[in-house]
Amino acid sequence: MKTNTQVLLSSRPGKHLSAENFTVSESHIPSLEDGQFLVKNVYLSLDAGFRQWMNEGASDNYLVAMPLDQPVQSIVLGEVIESRNPAFPEGTTVMGRTAWEQYSIADGSDLMTTVTAADDIPLHEHLCALGPSGMTAYFGLLDIGQPVAGETVVVSAAAGGVGSIVGQIAKIRGCRTVGISSSAEKCRWLEQQLKYDASINHRAGEGLLNQLKREAPGGIDIFFDNVGGEMLDVAMQCLAERARIVLCGAISQYEKSGQHSGVHHMWELITKRARAEGFMFSDYVDRYPLAIEEISEWIRQGKLTSPVVITEGIETTAQAFCDMLRGHNLGKCLVKLDSNR
Amino acid sequence: MKTNTQVLLSSRPGKHLSAENFTVSESHIPSLEDGQFLVKNVYLSLDAGFRQWMNEGASDNYLVAMPLDQPVQSIVLGEVIESRNPAFPEGTTVMGRTAWEQYSIADGSDLMTTVTAADDIPLHEHLCALGPSGMTAYFGLLDIGQPVAGETVVVSAAAGGVGSIVGQIAKIRGCRTVGISSSAEKCRWLEQQLKYDASINHRAGEGLLNQLKREAPGGIDIFFDNVGGEMLDVAMQCLAERARIVLCGAISQYEKSGQHSGVHHMWELITKRARAEGFMFSDYVDRYPLAIEEISEWIRQGKLTSPVVITEGIETTAQAFCDMLRGHNLGKCLVKLDSNR
Repeated sequence: MKTNTQVLLSSRPGKHLSAENFTVSESHIPSLEDGQFLVKNVYLSLDAGFRQWMNEGASDNYLVAMPLDQPVQSIVLGEVIESRNPAFPEGTTVMGRTAWEQYSIADGSDLMTTVTAADDIPLHEHLCALGPSGMTAYFGLLDIGQPVAGETVVVSAAAGGVGSIVGQIAKIRGCRTVGISSSAEKCRWLEQQLKYDASINHRAGEGLLNQLKREAPGGIDIFFDNVGGEMLDVAMQCLAERARIVLCGAISQYEKSGQHSGVHHMWELITKRARAEGFMFSDYVDRYPLAIEEISEWIRQGKLTSPVVITEGIETTAQAFCDMLRGHNLGKCLVKLDSNR
Repeated sequence: MKTNTQVLLSSRPGKHLSAENFTVSESHIPSLEDGQFLVKNVYLSLDAGFRQWMNEGASDNYLVAMPLDQPVQSIVLGEVIESRNPAFPEGTTVMGRTAWEQYSIADGSDLMTTVTAADDIPLHEHLCALGPSGMTAYFGLLDIGQPVAGETVVVSAAAGGVGSIVGQIAKIRGCRTVGISSSAEKCRWLEQQLKYDASINHRAGEGLLNQLKREAPGGIDIFFDNVGGEMLDVAMQCLAERARIVLCGAISQYEKSGQHSGVHHMWELITKRARAEGFMFSDYVDRYPLAIEEISEWIRQGKLTSPVVITEGIETTAQAFCDMLRGHNLGKCLVKLDSNR
């Protein structure tokens, strides 16, 4: 009988989540039932969106609050090492929503999909540009945003896992790209590594509104929003006619215990004939293969790079997640569990 | 030389607009220049949206603040009685944005269009179901909302000029219609006169949220919003998957001197994959003829009625506009200036 190392949510966060809200724990792995399979996890994906379901009473009809003293829910990538489910035989590489743990028992639900790894693309890309972050960027920008060459695309949390890919796809589609980030260092990185046409440090004294007006003088055609709250409200004051706001995330709001910050400029959507629309990458599962093919080609051609911050060992997970929430990362955050892959 | 009677905006409103902010004034009508024509106004259309441009410093990049001591801007319908513009010859019936005045000088800009009146439909319908209110209801509901038979359509300010038409078109398209209004009397009228399937008095003690949950148990598919602010925020908590919010107006916010109330539930747009989109009826001018044809047919078939509150005489205009802002009306508000038409 194998031993499983898991990271449990052991207490509700106060104002800010910290590593002390988590406990590393050992448990035995039960035998599989019919339809189940055992996954040895290789990478855990750290996604800010999961933060809000750590709050007490959190429920948005999409996910309910994570239970205490249970493994923290997460997207993971791993290999099936034992199976009683013919759709996921031993040896299959899979990705899905399980938890921060070395081994996961799955049954094919919870967004579980088979990953077809290519030899010339690193495995971890299936959690980055070819995985949830990439699918979110790709379908959010292209399907909801519908960019046209020459348009101005502004991305919030542009250095994050999703934002770092959105800007590059927008650039490939011929748009002018403006990335918003939280430090001068990250801004330099956006321009140098991700080829953003311009970058905005929203913490600079000049203020976000003034900088947006300067960097998008004709207005924002597409605002890809990962931050929500006040930043969304400011961006709404700078929209071009027929602007599209891609509502992807609201990282500024996940640590709020009460209601989210108010957005005061809905009226701008009327006068600008603009649209704000939400989406979930998981709705596009039927179209993943075509998206993966196109993004893989961009990676091979050197048009798209997938910046990643990888920590090693399950015991690093909690702190890495907290660091990501504070915006310490340049790119997508992963935890590697199996040093042989 | 003719004398013109005009209603001027003589002072900025405080917290609430009152008839005392206006002055009735006489002036001489100057001679026409090339390209101009003189319209004898028959009806003034009272539209809540114009309220906000009466505030000092109001500007939303769509219209700027109305100047003091000038005639109040308004949509009007009238007859060309003198013309130096071949596109608008004498005898033409026209509609456009001029002002609260007996005579208007126009040049064909400012939304000015020719009205082709039918003998079997009252002239005032060209400011109601066949005019700005009808075009707003028609294109907002059908183009932005994209209703599907069986869906639940909720309309705020359902007894207003636009709302009273939206509900009827939604019903014609096979939707379940729920109207929100501000009194039990208006709710009865919505159900009896406009055939709403259900009505909600948002001032009732039970509260809007509870009533919306009861009357739209499967969630709101289309929220046609004329009110904005807190009501929009509450409706956002009751959306069905793939809901559409038609952002048409924000009458609850027009009397605010500072910024509009905050909308706290943008996140719901993400989890429900929902869309909020603004529009302007005037963007659809090329498609007015087809819309007018279809709505005229509904009127002739008795499928759509156009409730209207008409006061007579330009001196009634200011008070009628204020009464409308307080929600005293059942249907569209007009002022009739020419008792012969």
